[in-house]
Amino acid sequence: MREVKNIPENSGTQARIEQKALSAKNLLGISQLSAEEIHLILYTARSFEEISTRAIKKVPTLRGRTIVNLFYEPSTRTRTSFELAGKRLSADVINISTKTSAVAKGEGLKDMALTLQAMGIDVVVIRHSVAGAPYMMARWTEARIINAGDGAHEHPTQALLDLYTIQSRLGRLKDLHILVVGDILHSRVARSNILALTKMKAKVTIVGPPTLIPMDIKKMGVEVSCDFDEVIPQADVIYLLRLQLERQKQNFFPSLREYASLFGFNKARLDKTKNNVLVMHPGPLNRGIEISSEVADIAQNIITEQVTSGIAVRMAVLYLLFGGASDIAEAAG
Amino acid sequence: MREVKNIPENSGTQARIEQKALSAKNLLGISQLSAEEIHLILYTARSFEEISTRAIKKVPTLRGRTIVNLFYEPSTRTRTSFELAGKRLSADVINISTKTSAVAKGEGLKDMALTLQAMGIDVVVIRHSVAGAPYMMARWTEARIINAGDGAHEHPTQALLDLYTIQSRLGRLKDLHILVVGDILHSRVARSNILALTKMKAKVTIVGPPTLIPMDIKKMGVEVSCDFDEVIPQADVIYLLRLQLERQKQNFFPSLREYASLFGFNKARLDKTKNNVLVMHPGPLNRGIEISSEVADIAQNIITEQVTSGIAVRMAVLYLLFGGASDIAEAAG
Amino acid sequence: MREVKNIPENSGTQARIEQKALSAKNLLGISQLSAEEIHLILYTARSFEEISTRAIKKVPTLRGRTIVNLFYEPSTRTRTSFELAGKRLSADVINISTKTSAVAKGEGLKDMALTLQAMGIDVVVIRHSVAGAPYMMARWTEARIINAGDGAHEHPTQALLDLYTIQSRLGRLKDLHILVVGDILHSRVARSNILALTKMKAKVTIVGPPTLIPMDIKKMGVEVSCDFDEVIPQADVIYLLRLQLERQKQNFFPSLREYASLFGFNKARLDKTKNNVLVMHPGPLNRGIEISSEVADIAQNIITEQVTSGIAVRMAVLYLLFGGASDIAEAAG
Repeated sequence: MREVKNIPENSGTQARIEQKALSAKNLLGISQLSAEEIHLILYTARSFEEISTRAIKKVPTLRGRTIVNLFYEPSTRTRTSFELAGKRLSADVINISTKTSAVAKGEGLKDMALTLQAMGIDVVVIRHSVAGAPYMMARWTEARIINAGDGAHEHPTQALLDLYTIQSRLGRLKDLHILVVGDILHSRVARSNILALTKMKAKVTIVGPPTLIPMDIKKMGVEVSCDFDEVIPQADVIYLLRLQLERQKQNFFPSLREYASLFGFNKARLDKTKNNVLVMHPGPLNRGIEISSEVADIAQNIITEQVTSGIAVRMAVLYLLFGGASDIAEAAG
Repeated sequence: MREVKNIPENSGTQARIEQKALSAKNLLGISQLSAEEIHLILYTARSFEEISTRAIKKVPTLRGRTIVNLFYEPSTRTRTSFELAGKRLSADVINISTKTSAVAKGEGLKDMALTLQAMGIDVVVIRHSVAGAPYMMARWTEARIINAGDGAHEHPTQALLDLYTIQSRLGRLKDLHILVVGDILHSRVARSNILALTKMKAKVTIVGPPTLIPMDIKKMGVEVSCDFDEVIPQADVIYLLRLQLERQKQNFFPSLREYASLFGFNKARLDKTKNNVLVMHPGPLNRGIEISSEVADIAQNIITEQVTSGIAVRMAVLYLLFGGASDIAEAAG
Repeated sequence: MREVKNIPENSGTQARIEQKALSAKNLLGISQLSAEEIHLILYTARSFEEISTRAIKKVPTLRGRTIVNLFYEPSTRTRTSFELAGKRLSADVINISTKTSAVAKGEGLKDMALTLQAMGIDVVVIRHSVAGAPYMMARWTEARIINAGDGAHEHPTQALLDLYTIQSRLGRLKDLHILVVGDILHSRVARSNILALTKMKAKVTIVGPPTLIPMDIKKMGVEVSCDFDEVIPQADVIYLLRLQLERQKQNFFPSLREYASLFGFNKARLDKTKNNVLVMHPGPLNRGIEISSEVADIAQNIITEQVTSGIAVRMAVLYLLFGGASDIAEAAG
C-alpha cells in the first residue's frame, strides 16, 4: 500500500486493523455497523483516496463485476459519486433511473429485485423515497445492497464520508462535540450521522425548531437545543443540514426569514465559534437560508472535501462488500 | 468450450453444429430466421450462459466494438439486458433514449440512421413504437440492426429467450403443445413466439377473447381457442401475455374482472394442468389480472429464469452477428 | 503513425508540425485559438480518423481519465459524439443531463463546478443555454473545459469539424469563398464558423434576412448579402444553417414559405453553383425549408461526413488538451 496518508496517532489506527471485513454483505444503514466496522471503512477509504489523485484513476479490483445504480429519486451528486467509485474499481456500472425505468409500467420493487438477481448483478446501489426499500431489496436478491438514501430513514455513505472528513481534519472522532443543525425530523443525513457519531463516541447536540425535532430523539444518545447561539461556543463541528424549501408550505416553521435568523449560520455566529471549528453541510447550499452568503465559502471548502471523501469512502465500501482486506495493498496500490 | 450445460440428446444438438453462422447481418424478426438458425442461436447461448455466473463476467469478444441502444420507447428490462450483454462481451455501449434524444427536435429515423452510420457504430439495438422501423434502419445503415421490439410486430430476442427457457426445462421444442394466452392482437411477443415455436415444430394454440385475436391468425399455423379451461389439460407450456391495461378503455374487453375470470391463470386452472407444466410470462406480472396472486410465484420463478436466459441469448446474437462460430470456445471460455 | 490520409501539398502541412500543443487547457471558443492551433487540431484529427474505421476502435490514450458530459440542453448528436470520442480514447465517460441532475434542486453552476472538481474529473464537456457558462465553469475548476455549445455564442468543435470536412474535400481553406446562410443572429454554429474560417484566411459571405443578421457583423471580417441568388455563383462552399422553427412565431421572418423561397437551397439554385461546390449543414435537415427535398441528399452526404469528422476532431481536441503531441504516433497507431 503506497502513499497512505498519515493518520494521527490518537485516531485508533491499531484497533482498526484487527477487523478485516464487514460482517454483512449489505450496507443498509449505520445502525447495522459496529464501531469497529466504521473504523475499518474509514481506514480502508484512506488507501483509496490516493487513487483519485492519479493520472490513471483506476485499479482492477472489481473488473468484470456489475453494479447497478437504481435511483427512484434523482440525485446527480450521489449517483455520479457511486458511478465514479465503481468505474475507478473497473466495475461495469449500469444506471437505472425512474425516468427511464419500467417502474412507470407498474413494475414493483420486488419484480425489480428478482430481475436484477436474474441478471447476475453483483451490487445494487438504491435510492428510494420509501424508508426501508433497501431492506426489502436485500431480502429479495443475493446482490450486495448499498442504501444510497431511503426516505427520511438513512443515508449511510453520506455519514461515513462526513466522519471521514472530520477525522481527516480534526484527527479523531472520539469526544468531539458536534452540532447537527436544522430539519432533523425529515433528514436521513441527520439520522445516519447521529448514529455514526455516537457509535464513535462523539458528543452530538441537535439544534433546530421544535417542530423539526423528533419527540424521542434523546433516545439516540444526543442532547437537544433550540438555542443555536448558546451551544455554538462549545462546538468542534457545526453540521448544517440542507433545508427542504417545500417544508415551509407545510407550516413546519413560520418563514424562511425567521428560520435564517434563528438557525442560519452567519458572520455573527461565526465570531462565537472555537478556533478551528469545522463548518459542514451535505451540499448543495441554500445560501441565505441555512448559511449566509458572507460565510458560505467556509462551508463550501469543506463540502468539496466531503465530495472527494465520498468517492474514497464509496470505493472502500464496494471493496469491503466483496470480502476480506487481505489484498488491499494490491487493490489500492 | 468449458462448462457447456448438457443438452438432452433428443434436442437436435448434432443438427445445430452444421450451421456455423447466421445468413443475415441483422436480427429484424423471427420471420427471417430458419429453424437451423434458431438452433444455432440457442446452442450458442448455452456457451454464453456460464459467463454470467462467473465472478469476472467478461470476455473480450467484442472489445473496441460500439453498440448503441436506441430506445424510442422506454424499457428498463430490455435495455439493461442488452447493455449487460454488450458489456460482458467488452463492447462499448451507448444509450440513446427519446428522453434525451434529438428526436424531439424533429430528427427523423433516417437522419438518425445516417448519423449512427457516420459514427462507425457496429450494432444498433432499436426499440420503436412503429412496426417496421428496424427494417427501415437496416436499409439506411451498414451497422448490424437488432430489433428490440417494433410496434405490434416482432420482438425476436424475447421469443428466442423464451424458446431457450422452454428447451432448458423440457429438453426439446418439437411436438410440445404451447398455449399463448391473452391479447394476441397487440402483442409483438406473441407474434415472435408463434413464428419461432411453429418453426421449431411445436404445436401452438392461442387463447383469448375474440376481440383480441387477429382474424387471419390461423394462417400462422396455430389453433385458436376461446375456452381456456378446455385446452389447459393438453398444455406443456402456458405462456401468459402481459395485458396492457389501457386496452380496457378502448373497449377491447368488458372489464378487467371478466378478463381475469375467463383468461386469468389461477389455482383452479393450475389444478387442471399436466404434471410439470411450464407457466411462463414475459414479465412484469399484472398480479390479479392475467395471473392470480396465489399462483403468481410459479410464473415468477420462470420469469427470472427467462431474464437470465435473455442475457445469454443476447450475447449469442451479438456474437453471431459478428460472424462465424469458429472461435466460440475462445469467446465463451 | 500509420494510414494518415494524404494531405494535399498546398494545405500547409509543414507549418502545422511546428506547433505541438495548445496554449490553453480549455477549448472555450474559436476566439481563443490561433490559426496555428486550428492547424494543429485539424492535423491531429487526421491521425485519429483512421481509428474509427478499425474493427477495434480503441486506443489507450486516456485510460483511467474521467470525462463528464454535462448537458443542460439535450443533444443526442453532440453528446454521443463526445461519448464515443472519449470511449475510443479509453476514458471513463459519465453523462449528466438536466433531466437527471440536481439542477432541479437549485444547485447552481458554481456548485456543480466545485463538485466535479472535488470528484477529480479531468474533462468537463458542457452545453448550456447561457452564453459564457463554459467560461464561468473554467474559472471555478481545474478540469479541462470543452464548450459544446453555449447559448448563441460559440460551438467550437462544430466549427472545427466543419473546417476539417472542407479541407478534406477541397484540400485547403485559404482563399475559399464560403457562404453562411440563414439565421446568423441566433446561431453559435455560424459564429464559431465565421471566426474559424476568417482566421484560416477564407472569404466568408453571410446571407440571410436582415432581421436575422447582427448589426455589427461586418466587424467579424465578413461580407453580407441579402440576395442569395446573386452570390451563389461565386461560392466554393454553401453552408446552410438549421432554422429554429420557433423563430417564426417570434416574427423574425414573415413565413416559412417566404424563407424557403428566398433562402432555401433548391434545384434552381444548385444549377447556378460552381462545379464541385460543397453544400454543408450542421444537421439535422429541415427538408423543405433551408433545403428542398429534391437536393437534400447532396447535403446529406456531407452531413454524414461531418459527423464522422466530428469524432476524429473531438478525439484530437481531447488528446491535445492532455498535452504534447510527442506520442501521437503511439496514441493513434
